[in-house]
Amino acid sequence: MAKAGTKKPKTIIVSLGGNVIIRREESGTIDEQFRNTELACRYIASLVDQGHRIIITHGNGPVVGNILIRNEAAGGEIPPMPLYICDADSEGGLGFMIQQALHNEFVKTHNIKDAVTIVTQVVVDAKDPAFKDPTKPIGPFYTKEQSERLTLEKNWVMLEDSGRGWRRNVASPRPVKIIEADIIKTLIKNNVIVIAAGGGGVPVTEDPDGTLAGIDAVIDKDFSTATLATQLGAELFINLTQIECAYLDFGKGRQKAINKMTVKEAHGYLAEDHFKAGSMRPKIEAAVEFVEGSKNKNASVIITTPELIEEAMEGRAGTRVVK
Amino acid sequence: MAKAGTKKPKTIIVSLGGNVIIRREESGTIDEQFRNTELACRYIASLVDQGHRIIITHGNGPVVGNILIRNEAAGGEIPPMPLYICDADSEGGLGFMIQQALHNEFVKTHNIKDAVTIVTQVVVDAKDPAFKDPTKPIGPFYTKEQSERLTLEKNWVMLEDSGRGWRRNVASPRPVKIIEADIIKTLIKNNVIVIAAGGGGVPVTEDPDGTLAGIDAVIDKDFSTATLATQLGAELFINLTQIECAYLDFGKGRQKAINKMTVKEAHGYLAEDHFKAGSMRPKIEAAVEFVEGSKNKNASVIITTPELIEEAMEGRAGTRVVK
Repeated sequence: MAKAGTKKPKTIIVSLGGNVIIRREESGTIDEQFRNTELACRYIASLVDQGHRIIITHGNGPVVGNILIRNEAAGGEIPPMPLYICDADSEGGLGFMIQQALHNEFVKTHNIKDAVTIVTQVVVDAKDPAFKDPTKPIGPFYTKEQSERLTLEKNWVMLEDSGRGWRRNVASPRPVKIIEADIIKTLIKNNVIVIAAGGGGVPVTEDPDGTLAGIDAVIDKDFSTATLATQLGAELFINLTQIECAYLDFGKGRQKAINKMTVKEAHGYLAEDHFKAGSMRPKIEAAVEFVEGSKNKNASVIITTPELIEEAMEGRAGTRVVK
Repeated sequence: MAKAGTKKPKTIIVSLGGNVIIRREESGTIDEQFRNTELACRYIASLVDQGHRIIITHGNGPVVGNILIRNEAAGGEIPPMPLYICDADSEGGLGFMIQQALHNEFVKTHNIKDAVTIVTQVVVDAKDPAFKDPTKPIGPFYTKEQSERLTLEKNWVMLEDSGRGWRRNVASPRPVKIIEADIIKTLIKNNVIVIAAGGGGVPVTEDPDGTLAGIDAVIDKDFSTATLATQLGAELFINLTQIECAYLDFGKGRQKAINKMTVKEAHGYLAEDHFKAGSMRPKIEAAVEFVEGSKNKNASVIITTPELIEEAMEGRAGTRVVK
């Protein structure tokens, strides 16, 4: 059994699922968002109390979806913003909420630390094959007629989404590097808790000379987190979601919880298609990427819910992926 | 004549007016915003080249106005966000644009420095008299009937705005302190250029125990910048706007440019009502506040356009406010 609960301070990157902030059954009012965020931050604050250096990333799916709906709703009146600006906006709003919830948790425990959100640019390759095959549905649902008009007017790739209407599909390219990684390193060295790469970060392309430009895409926050974890030399990547752990044969009668697996075992399970696409699968893929890429032989990933962090750190809950 | 162009590195806080980013004659497309921001960043980058430690603040008036219009337009469909979340969103989007424009300017001059946006919370006093008398118009224009409904439904203070319709008015309280000032200090000490307190920062109240909570208000970015400049111990506060300098008798036939004034002279001019409310007046008031409050006897403020920074540093343009 992994003895993770030792007292040596670690650099830990914690990723909050977008569905941890706006739950599937909710409409996403600000009160709901704050309540969910505060709950998650309570468990994250206890990691801070234990002396670990903490970086927090988060999803933004439901939030950036709403920002896109608002952009379209007012599109006749004022210029809509491109998707990458909507991403940056969501880093501001969600980051504010997380840094404030953390601060308020520190107030309760009388252990005040600085926490701050960094607007984060994530480089993607303009030649990533994802740009030729956009498969990530975002924003509002449209009728077939609206959808055809949008393809003509805006050159959007529109695809029918499970009988509910037509949606814009964008590319979900792999992250190459995080521009602000050195700044984040400086901050964690100075005992600041950093919130970064929200929503997977703002996707940018980088010219050979280093010039950056925003590009309309959505980067999976699990992969951005793995990339950032690697650049920071993190020891542990905790991926928080609504599901307690990963399962073999998920959703089938015989599903079986995975408490621990090596990257080699994970490769096997991925090949056997045990995990749900767009849900647990990218989490396992990102875990494998981080653990394999890390120079630290003890690098590992935990996948669990906010409530089970403590138990999972001790190997009694969640799923741990190791070398 | 002030000899400001000396080579000793200074801590300089530069404030970009919202109207420098979206000009009055523009609708605010992302291309217009980027072009204006890149132009301003060219001049700011030359201050970085000279070795100064730079913090950038900015307005968000036209941008947060558009975010509010989008929120209202989609209000029947998805939950609108409170004003303080819209403020935080605008810190993300505008901050991203400024940090990228700066980075790209550094690429051009082959002097790469790190630049980053910090989501910033600014404490205001819940007992600030501004909350009893909301006078800052924001967001869309409404008809009288819509306006009466909004007062009933949302308890908004609605006021008729110069014959163009009815608008929501919110409080514009004075900033008390910047929560993230120490983090910003750490970053500038480490040669990072920091973008902070965008749109005046996200207004929050602070309970006696230190618990923070967002509050719907708009903090004037000139005053937030003065507060941040004081907390950082900045030597110089450069306030960039669309007007070259302050004038005595502004807008009258006999208007006269002010090249330099002491805070004592500034008090006199303010009493004689030489400056336009909501435009130059808060800039002069914020200048006086910073220069008077600073422990540094050489602390000063320059008010000018981005294009004239260099000349203004040498005393040949703009308006300088000194002890």
